[in-house]
Amino acid sequence: MNTHVVIMAGGVGSRLWPVSTPEKPKQFIDLLGIGKTLIQMTLERFSPVCELSNFWVVTSEAYVDIVREQLPQIPKSHILAEPEPRNTAPCIAYACWKIHAESPGANIVVTPADALVINVQKFAAAIRKALNFTEGTNNIVTVGIEPSRPETGYGYIQAEERKPDEIVKVMEFKEKPDIETAKAYLSAGNYFWNAGIFVWSCKTIISELRTHAPQIAGIMDRIAASFGTWKEKETLDELFPTCEKISIDYAVMEKSKDIHVIASDLGWSDLGSFSSIKEHIPMPEEDPVPDGGAAKAIEGDNKVIGQDIRLFGCERCLIHAEDARTVVVSGLKDYIVAVKDGNVLVCPISEEQMIKEYSAIHPDKTKKV
Amino acid sequence: MNTHVVIMAGGVGSRLWPVSTPEKPKQFIDLLGIGKTLIQMTLERFSPVCELSNFWVVTSEAYVDIVREQLPQIPKSHILAEPEPRNTAPCIAYACWKIHAESPGANIVVTPADALVINVQKFAAAIRKALNFTEGTNNIVTVGIEPSRPETGYGYIQAEERKPDEIVKVMEFKEKPDIETAKAYLSAGNYFWNAGIFVWSCKTIISELRTHAPQIAGIMDRIAASFGTWKEKETLDELFPTCEKISIDYAVMEKSKDIHVIASDLGWSDLGSFSSIKEHIPMPEEDPVPDGGAAKAIEGDNKVIGQDIRLFGCERCLIHAEDARTVVVSGLKDYIVAVKDGNVLVCPISEEQMIKEYSAIHPDKTKKV
Repeated sequence: MNTHVVIMAGGVGSRLWPVSTPEKPKQFIDLLGIGKTLIQMTLERFSPVCELSNFWVVTSEAYVDIVREQLPQIPKSHILAEPEPRNTAPCIAYACWKIHAESPGANIVVTPADALVINVQKFAAAIRKALNFTEGTNNIVTVGIEPSRPETGYGYIQAEERKPDEIVKVMEFKEKPDIETAKAYLSAGNYFWNAGIFVWSCKTIISELRTHAPQIAGIMDRIAASFGTWKEKETLDELFPTCEKISIDYAVMEKSKDIHVIASDLGWSDLGSFSSIKEHIPMPEEDPVPDGGAAKAIEGDNKVIGQDIRLFGCERCLIHAEDARTVVVSGLKDYIVAVKDGNVLVCPISEEQMIKEYSAIHPDKTKKV
Repeated sequence: MNTHVVIMAGGVGSRLWPVSTPEKPKQFIDLLGIGKTLIQMTLERFSPVCELSNFWVVTSEAYVDIVREQLPQIPKSHILAEPEPRNTAPCIAYACWKIHAESPGANIVVTPADALVINVQKFAAAIRKALNFTEGTNNIVTVGIEPSRPETGYGYIQAEERKPDEIVKVMEFKEKPDIETAKAYLSAGNYFWNAGIFVWSCKTIISELRTHAPQIAGIMDRIAASFGTWKEKETLDELFPTCEKISIDYAVMEKSKDIHVIASDLGWSDLGSFSSIKEHIPMPEEDPVPDGGAAKAIEGDNKVIGQDIRLFGCERCLIHAEDARTVVVSGLKDYIVAVKDGNVLVCPISEEQMIKEYSAIHPDKTKKV
């Protein structure tokens, strides 16, 4: 099989400040303190279904060197730099036009760089099943995640029926719901979290984009005419930013007929918040941290990442301080303490949705007496 | 007048971790965020009463370069390095034997490097009065601080009578009291905090040490025989560590007759704890921070030191983070957050007496699940 994997690695992760910053966002960080960055874990997760030479990464210019450093196994020519972020549809289009030029019969998986999957064998089996289903066909398969709670932070995929680990038709993509709707989805049983993972052949993607996003497809044709010439970068820099800024979900998935979903209980998380990180830091007895990992669970339901974290009377806290020397925290309950590159966050877990704002705010905004 | 000032700068300040560390203890730090370190403020405070060429600093070998850097105005030969700390009596003896070799008729003030005085003009007047009283006599004068609260963390000086800003006889030196005793001292009115500042002539110190601490005086005589020779450092390194380890209070003050005290309301603090730092960070309207200073008072009775400190819903906190980039703190009441050199402390102000222990504890002592 001629399988290619496209890893989208352009995100910023601003809800995880100061651990994730625009200089080095979450996909390039060992968020769980286990000795591997999220993009390295993503490569590892897909390596059972794809040759290393068939991996591609789409990222921004600023992160190309980080990708080369963290994924030295993949071809340098497969690290694609977007001149500016235009959401996922242009990102995926660019990668697929590039793959098409090399290998028009390719069968493709597109995945975010920064999610966590616990059940990696089950995951690889689901991806294989999807690839078999799309190979040489016009089928599109998305990966659905069996919801474990009425989460309001994710989009949902409504399947025609509930058939775990089987490929079934998608009825509708659903926006992030309110809590009542999320509860209804959960009890209905045929709604799954949209993990942003898509499987389809190169020809199918291109054909779908020509149909549903002709502006983007037209630009890609013009960029593709320069592939391999000295004008490639110049053309890309000129034309890519003129693409419509739109997600692949809006541009294609919600318009396309015959989308399928394979839904599984994969132990998936987008690791988009400190509380999800806290939840997934492994407890020693259940999933030992490899030697060299800096994550630990500490009495009082605390989770810590760092070389020398000392807690006194703390409960249910997350201390994320990999590059700190010694961190002493006393008397906090349900708090996040995060330290990175000389920045410090001390914030109740219940306020974590405010972190983006707190860290973005201009210093003059804090009131002085 | 032939006045000399000896600044004792050997302390470690372990109750202020991580701001004060053995690598760079509190006397060498801009603890109040006003653009000057404590030892620089001490030099400035005494400069009205003493030529710059008559200042001396006794410190440990490890801090000699820091002293040279922070006090470039004073002669290099006046920066004395103790081979090891032996408390204040050997420290003062060493400085006085050195001064005696240069200037036997000197009149001397001995002071710690790391205290704060707000009322600097009143302070200079008190020191001048004490120097006039000791010039060419055997008198010894200590500086007493009018207590503002029943403090249990300082030693006290009991004066024969209460005469603010006048020199009166000392009845007794008192150890750190319990709270009931401290309250009794406060209401009695003739008990003053012992600031560790002593004024006396060089001849008086040497004579008192010969009488009450002959072991130390004998060693100093042997070291002094090598002054100015190539054997000076070797002799010092060999003999100084054999001195009895004892404070000047025990060795001399409590045994000597005719000790006097000049007691004043000087706005003095030993800045020995974060709460004392918090108290003395100036409010903008009462004592504006000079340009370039990083200290601010922020709504909610918070005090902050740092370039970009952002508080949300915090009350009565001290954030001390001069070398941090951005610090975000939310929802804390009565807390200390201190950041320095990659170390972080988050601790209730009410637990500040535990900081020394928390920061010294071996990491293996924190319990893991």
